[in-house]
Amino acid sequence: MDDGGDPIGELVRMLVRLPGVGEKSARRIAFHVLGAPPEFARALGQSVATLAERVRRCATCGVYTSRAVCTLCDDPRRARDVLCVVARPMDVDAIERTRAFAGRYHVLHCLLDPLGGVGPAEFPLEALIDRIRGEGVREVILATPPTVEGEATSLYLAESLRGLGVAVSRIASGVPHGGDLEFTDPITLGRALEGRRSL
Amino acid sequence: MDDGGDPIGELVRMLVRLPGVGEKSARRIAFHVLGAPPEFARALGQSVATLAERVRRCATCGVYTSRAVCTLCDDPRRARDVLCVVARPMDVDAIERTRAFAGRYHVLHCLLDPLGGVGPAEFPLEALIDRIRGEGVREVILATPPTVEGEATSLYLAESLRGLGVAVSRIASGVPHGGDLEFTDPITLGRALEGRRSL
Repeated sequence: MDDGGDPIGELVRMLVRLPGVGEKSARRIAFHVLGAPPEFARALGQSVATLAERVRRCATCGVYTSRAVCTLCDDPRRARDVLCVVARPMDVDAIERTRAFAGRYHVLHCLLDPLGGVGPAEFPLEALIDRIRGEGVREVILATPPTVEGEATSLYLAESLRGLGVAVSRIASGVPHGGDLEFTDPITLGRALEGRRSL
Repeated sequence: MDDGGDPIGELVRMLVRLPGVGEKSARRIAFHVLGAPPEFARALGQSVATLAERVRRCATCGVYTSRAVCTLCDDPRRARDVLCVVARPMDVDAIERTRAFAGRYHVLHCLLDPLGGVGPAEFPLEALIDRIRGEGVREVILATPPTVEGEATSLYLAESLRGLGVAVSRIASGVPHGGDLEFTDPITLGRALEGRRSL
């Protein structure tokens, strides 16, 4: 099947660059596309190719949207004075699924990572400060991930927002729901102990 | 993020129809495409959309190829008189990876499945018989999967090829390599016992 022109191999090499797609599932996907009605392959390909043109970042909060202002920013029922700061648009989806937050979001689209080319000079701090000042934000929840870069970003933001008169908090890190202490890594378990709440 | 036009949701709904892609991984893929360079999304989309146009079935054996005759049929080192019959083109890939077979293939592109619309009248038996007769095939290995449809197809073929003067065999079914007897289902274990080989 390794012919001169190798369309299946070409597709597989692109598919394995997607998250969660290994060599084996890439081949299964390619063969599925070949076996599916041609309209499906055309529609899927079209959708992938044009996605970036049809989706932009919300000018206010940065989530992906096909409108000028996203439905989250446009929703009058959402509190304007509580801002949840996340690294990536998909983190907004994750938090929305909890139905535990009814404020607004601010997507950084990056984390502080000096070795990776995002130092304080490159970090989009101004946009966040402008929003806090312009929209009368009273509370900022830092929901960057509990990784090295996420924690560094959180500390940097907590420091930078001091003096703006906003309450700044950090999401809890600990043993996940349904998790087993025996199989929880020491750092997570240490954080769970550190972040214990009185009952 | 559920705006009027919902390009991300549209893509996700198509992606979940692919094998091994759930709702969660579909969203991760969509967000990855959005974050990737636009050339990547365009190339991937183009590759998916045009795959079926650039790939055809080998006129002889039925595997997917971009040439008139596939490299497998075109390889003079492969035995012409041993034919391995499989259900799907991807099964050829799986067998090729074993490096344990040096004959030719015959891809059925279906299995006998009267309830699913493939009865003896629809089953492509003639093409296989024509090949056996035309190419002087002496041995046929039935490598359809050990499922209900795969076994039915295998029995039907064994019956139908009787009288053509070819040796017909069926691939072994049993406990997989590295498998644990404790966790092997009773049907598989029963087959492993039934198919035991003297040492």
